[in-house]
Amino acid sequence: MARVVVDVMLKPEILDPQGQAVANALPRLGVDDVSSVRIGRRVEIEFDGEIDLDRVNEIADKLLANPVIEDFTVNVAEVA
Amino acid sequence: MARVVVDVMLKPEILDPQGQAVANALPRLGVDDVSSVRIGRRVEIEFDGEIDLDRVNEIADKLLANPVIEDFTVNVAEVA
Repeated sequence: MARVVVDVMLKPEILDPQGQAVANALPRLGVDDVSSVRIGRRVEIEFDGEIDLDRVNEIADKLLANPVIEDFTVNVAEVA
Repeated sequence: MARVVVDVMLKPEILDPQGQAVANALPRLGVDDVSSVRIGRRVEIEFDGEIDLDRVNEIADKLLANPVIEDFTVNVAEVA
């Protein structure tokens, strides 16, 4: 079994209101040295057999991310 | 500047309908050897100064994750 992690984040030039809301809430917790918060998605995919990274990239591009506004990175997390 | 990444995932025993929907869509892309898909949040926090991991854990616990149904992990991503 093998696990791939796909991280999907908004492109840097796209506003992230969800992250902004968290950043604005931090001073209420006494945290005032945070310059930026960005929130994206982490997708963990478990394969039965071998990982085909080309196919994972295709899955991420077609199904997991919106390439117009989002970037994604693919990492092989573990092979057990 | 330093960046911390907080990954928030549903606990393993909590059903993940969003991940299940992706898993169900994969055969339509010709992928049939995926056993599980779980979708969570990736939060990137940029600090102006030093990282206080105790404080990051407090932020994650109080603001980013719902500890009843979610687990989180904190990773220091880079120090530039």
